[in-house]
Amino acid sequence: MRKDDKSIRVIFTPSGRRGTARRGQKLLGVARELGVDIDSACGGRAICGRCQVRVAEGDFPREGIRSRAGHLSGISEAERRHGELRELPEGHRLACQARILDDVVIDVPPESQIHRQLVRKAADDRAIPIDPLIRPLLVEVEPPDMANPESDFTRLARAVEEEWHISGLRADTAVLTDLQAALRAGDWRVTVLIHQAREESAPLLIGVRPGFDETLTGLAVDIGSTTIAAHLTDLHSGEVLATAGAMNPQIRFGEDLMSRVSHAMMEPEGTRQMRDAVRAAINALAAEVAARAGLEARDILDVTLAGNPVMHHLLLGINPRELGQAPFALAVDEALEPRAADIGLSLAPAARAYVLPCVAGHVGADAAAVALAEAPHESEEMSLIIDIGTNAEIFLGNRRRILACSSPTGPAFEGAQIFSGQRAAPGAIERVRIDRKTLRARYKVIGCEPWSDAEGFEEAVSATGVSGICGSGIVEAVAEMYLSGIIDASGRFRQEAADNGGPLRRRGRSLVYVLRAGEPEILVTQEDVRAVQLAKAALLAGVRLLMDEMGTREVARIRLAGAFGNHIDPLYAMILGMIPDCPLERVQAAGNAAGTGARMALTSRAARREVETLVRRMEKIETALAARFQEHFVQAMGFPLAGGGWENLEKAVRLPRPSGQPRPAGRRRRRKTNPKTGGDAKS
Amino acid sequence: MRKDDKSIRVIFTPSGRRGTARRGQKLLGVARELGVDIDSACGGRAICGRCQVRVAEGDFPREGIRSRAGHLSGISEAERRHGELRELPEGHRLACQARILDDVVIDVPPESQIHRQLVRKAADDRAIPIDPLIRPLLVEVEPPDMANPESDFTRLARAVEEEWHISGLRADTAVLTDLQAALRAGDWRVTVLIHQAREESAPLLIGVRPGFDETLTGLAVDIGSTTIAAHLTDLHSGEVLATAGAMNPQIRFGEDLMSRVSHAMMEPEGTRQMRDAVRAAINALAAEVAARAGLEARDILDVTLAGNPVMHHLLLGINPRELGQAPFALAVDEALEPRAADIGLSLAPAARAYVLPCVAGHVGADAAAVALAEAPHESEEMSLIIDIGTNAEIFLGNRRRILACSSPTGPAFEGAQIFSGQRAAPGAIERVRIDRKTLRARYKVIGCEPWSDAEGFEEAVSATGVSGICGSGIVEAVAEMYLSGIIDASGRFRQEAADNGGPLRRRGRSLVYVLRAGEPEILVTQEDVRAVQLAKAALLAGVRLLMDEMGTREVARIRLAGAFGNHIDPLYAMILGMIPDCPLERVQAAGNAAGTGARMALTSRAARREVETLVRRMEKIETALAARFQEHFVQAMGFPLAGGGWENLEKAVRLPRPSGQPRPAGRRRRRKTNPKTGGDAKS
Repeated sequence: MRKDDKSIRVIFTPSGRRGTARRGQKLLGVARELGVDIDSACGGRAICGRCQVRVAEGDFPREGIRSRAGHLSGISEAERRHGELRELPEGHRLACQARILDDVVIDVPPESQIHRQLVRKAADDRAIPIDPLIRPLLVEVEPPDMANPESDFTRLARAVEEEWHISGLRADTAVLTDLQAALRAGDWRVTVLIHQAREESAPLLIGVRPGFDETLTGLAVDIGSTTIAAHLTDLHSGEVLATAGAMNPQIRFGEDLMSRVSHAMMEPEGTRQMRDAVRAAINALAAEVAARAGLEARDILDVTLAGNPVMHHLLLGINPRELGQAPFALAVDEALEPRAADIGLSLAPAARAYVLPCVAGHVGADAAAVALAEAPHESEEMSLIIDIGTNAEIFLGNRRRILACSSPTGPAFEGAQIFSGQRAAPGAIERVRIDRKTLRARYKVIGCEPWSDAEGFEEAVSATGVSGICGSGIVEAVAEMYLSGIIDASGRFRQEAADNGGPLRRRGRSLVYVLRAGEPEILVTQEDVRAVQLAKAALLAGVRLLMDEMGTREVARIRLAGAFGNHIDPLYAMILGMIPDCPLERVQAAGNAAGTGARMALTSRAARREVETLVRRMEKIETALAARFQEHFVQAMGFPLAGGGWENLEKAVRLPRPSGQPRPAGRRRRRKTNPKTGGDAKS
Repeated sequence: MRKDDKSIRVIFTPSGRRGTARRGQKLLGVARELGVDIDSACGGRAICGRCQVRVAEGDFPREGIRSRAGHLSGISEAERRHGELRELPEGHRLACQARILDDVVIDVPPESQIHRQLVRKAADDRAIPIDPLIRPLLVEVEPPDMANPESDFTRLARAVEEEWHISGLRADTAVLTDLQAALRAGDWRVTVLIHQAREESAPLLIGVRPGFDETLTGLAVDIGSTTIAAHLTDLHSGEVLATAGAMNPQIRFGEDLMSRVSHAMMEPEGTRQMRDAVRAAINALAAEVAARAGLEARDILDVTLAGNPVMHHLLLGINPRELGQAPFALAVDEALEPRAADIGLSLAPAARAYVLPCVAGHVGADAAAVALAEAPHESEEMSLIIDIGTNAEIFLGNRRRILACSSPTGPAFEGAQIFSGQRAAPGAIERVRIDRKTLRARYKVIGCEPWSDAEGFEEAVSATGVSGICGSGIVEAVAEMYLSGIIDASGRFRQEAADNGGPLRRRGRSLVYVLRAGEPEILVTQEDVRAVQLAKAALLAGVRLLMDEMGTREVARIRLAGAFGNHIDPLYAMILGMIPDCPLERVQAAGNAAGTGARMALTSRAARREVETLVRRMEKIETALAARFQEHFVQAMGFPLAGGGWENLEKAVRLPRPSGQPRPAGRRRRRKTNPKTGGDAKS
């Protein structure tokens, strides 16, 4: 049935947009007219292959349409050449080449849409949304002419307007230096890189390349106080091309955040020193990941940056002194969108940067990135998200409401200020099991596969040695000590345990647990147990405070973020009473959530608006001002007891019983603990 | 007559805006409601004194209003204190303090309007329009509060919105480093500096100062290939606070433009070297003018930059190679608005920059600045504006139409490639008169007050000596040689003149004129005369080409810009035939027109839009493509003869007559001159 004289009907799926076409009209043109989201970078020249579509063959009686592959024109010469070069999948056509001959239903696969969701790769990976800020577009620019003294940029902007309907193009000054050479090297055919921070922003030219070159790479950076991680990311797919990490060189000005704040307060050049140090580290990482991907740092077009408030301020060169004292006022919490060069980053000359927003004085852009990646606001379920570092950032909420707070957990979870403690590094004990009868421990060391009681351990461990116990190790040690009856629910060493002999020893006035005998000896002291109790009580108190505020008594899922959060066993976290009771299979590590959030902000304009809105929507609870925080803190010092509201936990382990005491031992003692100083109440 | 119960009538002059007010309402509030342009920087706190108004006392029967000073409330306490501090002129009231009690007519004097014209100071000065891009506004910011973790910037932005109705404030990243200290130093009372490049641009915070400090300074820079001039300007008044000039350090890479283009083409680092050199020179000038005004470079908030296309490109770090060869394509001609730091200028950390637009490959941003200052488009008169350098930029036009071209005058007008030539500097002969009988010259030397034939000359000239002849000197020498009959209308030395003896001498095959005997001897050779003829012919040919295109046979006024344009005597320019016939009193030096244009762009947003529109509107004529240019060039080689269409000139001097020849001697010879090579036709 020929339809020369009447208009042909076209339906696009999955959008469902439909309309009519003239016979012979190109598919891409029709799609544009109907507002169908089909990508294209080469402007219909059969080069980029982004506009691939399929004919949905079949009868659509409700529409009165019979759709057949033959209702499109045959494969064009350009299309055939493209197919030879890039292997066009069976049945795929280029919308810029195929002409419509008769009624047809066209399926636009996800990879041909400009706005798309990248399929997640693992269960704990969030799908990376693609809503590009930068588009590579091929244009042909009119050569200059004596009779018309327009500048190269003017003619380029006109080509962009004519071919892509993008008007009002401005140029980043840094691009102008390369413009003329690129135009001539490409023989007036260039790929322009156009950045639009927001839908309504003026389009900005941030790069010009000879010929067609649609490579787009960006960098997602997570600035931790200890380590900095950088992920080189393909902006088309969200795929990580290379990742590298480095120690934060600011450590030489102060190990923890407060020391760095002090350095900035005491040294006139302190802020500048730390600013330059972190910028240099990011530049080195950028060069490293680029090299690994066969690129150069100057190929990186965009960078997103997340970090806690002190890291955030130091990156920007802002003295963090106000973050070291009440009322902990941030200089700025809004997301920032400077040129990368303006914050000292050496990427592409006109590269852009996006600094994620901060939530509050203790809840930084890294926490915002975690929240973006974990998306509590997208679910009906009540989610609890905890990012554990020196402070724990805690989010609780769902689609309707989200609360945020920060709790001062201190350094115990990082293995600091623990008698045999150390950072998580090869040689550190990371897993501990205690025999319920002999009370002897077996353990696992980072960098050594077999457990300490397994065959071949001595040989295997000789590479690293055993140097100490890291955060997850001390958590498991204390939890196992509790389950084994070495300490009671209040955290005190039990005399009865020592009476049986075994690995307990008197040390001064108190007992000490010998986790490992020999050289070096690894001990767990009463002070270590107290330090872990203070840390976990602070964390749980923060969680309870948010649960009170939310008016909920339980949470549907718990996500643990941060290096420590990814490393600990959720079971032990719960035995310790770090986190509230919850079905154990619903407690999961969040993976590199801050990095994922930073990557989402890199590939998606929508994700940037999302995190900005999310941060504004969050209700921030200041723990220092909440009277109930102290109350919760005191109550959270003890360990979970059977029948104490830990039903889910009790399904997994046998919890100690209150042992005939009218109230658990812990309860009695808690009142005497001074949570302010962290000092241990002496009885 | 009390009017408590009915609304009171208020009329503002000169705007004529009128409306009603409630009794007791503040004048400033009423003015705002009615959209009356009244300035204010302190937000109604009687600090800035910008909102001064007067009551126009009298009866306005047509309006039915009796306006009396007493119809405003009495002097308030704050107003009295302000008056003591800043001397409020008699009868002036602060609109932010005075309350309306009864019908009143209020006069808003020009100095209280945000948009105003600064009265011109001299006849050749254009009034500097004020339409500020930056406003200093006093705000009181809410202090931070533990219970509300908003950032300092968020609270500052809210204060700006609440007090000034400016919403959507963004901060330049560089400002954030100073923000917190300024807020605390000012005890939460700060002056914010808000920049809006365009009416529709998002307001940008570029500075925060403790307390009230409304100082606003900017820098207007004219980058010449030989010298760079910088004018520190008060952005409120347009007044020049300090001016400094320096040699363009790019001279060490090439004396003239073409040598610099060559340097950029030959040396891989050439562009960067010259870019860094000019930026360093501007930074040094900025520091110098700031120091002279008792400020620092970091107090400079905005900079405007004008220069010819090569200077423009080198400032931006763009290789100017394309400007050295046809078709002379500019990389960019649009005005650019980068941050000053992004083009390597060390001013205030968040200072802005504005690079004026270029007109065409040979007509740069300096010429655009001249056009802005001279404003041919504002008049009905046909204006001819000539900016003379190695190239002459020529504008011809009026309100309806403006033409632009560039003509290759070569270096003769700068004293280069002239036998005894030199730059205009102390010791150079700048004025010449030749006795019509003896043919001897008297002259004036730069840096020496008396003429060479005056008493005390020898003593006076001993300070500088006589070292050569500069551009204006050679122009006058050749013109006087013509009027004295030493050379004929074709420029040839006349044998008859030599026959009489006197200061003519044979040198090789031709004659030479001894302008000054003794040590050093200053000579004018046949080649010198030819060089001046070629230069002036190129200039006049460009003018004639534009006049042809415009279809006009005369111009109403002529303005001469540039160092040479300001130095030459218009009479001699016309005797030489550099410029077309025009009433002599309508030929004027334009003063420092490029600098004035740059200053206008500094103080006025409207002026920026004006020059951008003007440049786009101009019709660019490429002399190299115009067949008639060669024709005009050949015809323009000779000197004006009586009866040859130089009526205005003939009123001032006695021009030689064609002396019985059927055609002037010059005419016969002209055909043989090769204007392309500039070679002199041999007979």
